[in-house]
Amino acid sequence: MSVIYDRVALIGLGLIASSMFWAMKRAGLAGEVTGFARSAETRKIARDIGLCDRVCDSAAEAVEGADLVVLCVPVGAMESVMRDIAPALKPVATLSDVGSVKRAVIEAITPLLPKDVHFVPAHPLAGTEHSGPKSGFAELFENRWTLIVPPEGCDRTAVERLTKLWQGMGALTDEMEAEHHDLVLAVTSHAPHLIAYTMVGVADDLRRVTDTEVIKYSAAGFRDFTRIAASDPTMWRDVFLNNREATLEILGRFTEELFDLQRAIRAGDGDHLHAYFTRTRAIRRGIIEAGQDTDAPDFGRIKHD
Amino acid sequence: MSVIYDRVALIGLGLIASSMFWAMKRAGLAGEVTGFARSAETRKIARDIGLCDRVCDSAAEAVEGADLVVLCVPVGAMESVMRDIAPALKPVATLSDVGSVKRAVIEAITPLLPKDVHFVPAHPLAGTEHSGPKSGFAELFENRWTLIVPPEGCDRTAVERLTKLWQGMGALTDEMEAEHHDLVLAVTSHAPHLIAYTMVGVADDLRRVTDTEVIKYSAAGFRDFTRIAASDPTMWRDVFLNNREATLEILGRFTEELFDLQRAIRAGDGDHLHAYFTRTRAIRRGIIEAGQDTDAPDFGRIKHD
Repeated sequence: MSVIYDRVALIGLGLIASSMFWAMKRAGLAGEVTGFARSAETRKIARDIGLCDRVCDSAAEAVEGADLVVLCVPVGAMESVMRDIAPALKPVATLSDVGSVKRAVIEAITPLLPKDVHFVPAHPLAGTEHSGPKSGFAELFENRWTLIVPPEGCDRTAVERLTKLWQGMGALTDEMEAEHHDLVLAVTSHAPHLIAYTMVGVADDLRRVTDTEVIKYSAAGFRDFTRIAASDPTMWRDVFLNNREATLEILGRFTEELFDLQRAIRAGDGDHLHAYFTRTRAIRRGIIEAGQDTDAPDFGRIKHD
Repeated sequence: MSVIYDRVALIGLGLIASSMFWAMKRAGLAGEVTGFARSAETRKIARDIGLCDRVCDSAAEAVEGADLVVLCVPVGAMESVMRDIAPALKPVATLSDVGSVKRAVIEAITPLLPKDVHFVPAHPLAGTEHSGPKSGFAELFENRWTLIVPPEGCDRTAVERLTKLWQGMGALTDEMEAEHHDLVLAVTSHAPHLIAYTMVGVADDLRRVTDTEVIKYSAAGFRDFTRIAASDPTMWRDVFLNNREATLEILGRFTEELFDLQRAIRAGDGDHLHAYFTRTRAIRRGIIEAGQDTDAPDFGRIKHD
């Protein structure tokens, strides 16, 4: 693979930025990669582990001369970072981000955008429950979707160049309109995360069932919820506050359905429950066929002989 | 390991029974193991793959002369199976089951129990989203808890012998009282499963978000829910109908908490959300430290270099 951008700046050095760095380096997609993180401790770790070719002490310094600048900070921090870097952005640079919410980010960034900078928002649907500069690895994006969400009138050359970068890091790519992105993500990610957080919180609250028991016996199903409920709190707070309408809409639908199933349990309506559970099996099958999960029992946690 | 029971009968030949068979054989814990399944097709598959030393065409025939009989059928089928086998049970045999609900099973079985048979209910907290006679494997119970739930006045020798069998199959064991078992399981398993089924059902219903999109982009969190929502519909219908009160109580608590978080999102109360999400992280940490899940990112789905 040949170099796609001579100079890339990563602002924010968490799971996504660090994975991007290792993925770009592995594939030789970028010349020099600079990085900046607000926390001095994160910058020190980054320097210690060789994350980024050059770690800078200000965001403005990191973006100077960069052909591509990627904002990898929580959605709620995008606007303030943008204020810091806007004057330092190189003309005709591409600005992108990796936020899990797109409409709110576009609304925050666009008014601050220098006229000659192309803003191409993106969202890699990849992640783990781990966070921080040490959590990244080159394979994170492999065979995972990255959604490119170009605003109206976005420069096509800039879009295609960024798409190539993501593909070079192993991602599958699609383009999507911001509103639709936020709704799809509310269903596939934001509502499930809030539900998982809630169930874990309930388990933690119950006084008659001790913490120890919940933890010991978690393999019965609960532990699958705890993985996503262990994700970065700041990132998720910002996601919910910035994709409020779509998330609340899906949660409303969820509550309706849950009440319906609770009613069926109370009434002893086994046929209704059985039919519902049979339908949901098919979706799992679809995900496995689409290559988005493993068919190995229990996510392959169990090692067979 | 030496033989613990000379003759074991497995009634119902799904994931748990087939895993028990392979685990007992691997460790040499049982002499002859007989098996019965209601469906002729399942019996045929069992014979084809060598599941059980002898597959019988009736439950009564399978339990004849058995020192241990294990009911591995859905909770709702326990009573009817018990009617079939009760007259054929050998005196001083141990009868056990692997149902996910214990109080209802004890209530169904006890009135039909011959005076000289020891009933020792048990529940292995192990499983995968797969079902049927081909889904079993010897390692399923390794390092997983099996809860032994002896009714009042239960014969201690019988309890200890069954406990040894489970430990011989690799399980960790604990004893628990039936009511408490049903509440703990409502928290760690039954409520999470119903919630997962519901979320998958909601995603399936949404007309503006196509099935394809939900499936393609499932890696964003949703796919973790679909795994448990792919579990056996009959088994789960019976669990909810037979652990009704505890499940509905936990779901009530869940709904309260979910409403509270929804209100925080609507009101833009980021501090409340952040504090909540920070608390849930600690539980995940506890599960990993207790050896009940892997710390590998994304359940170890991603293979690192």
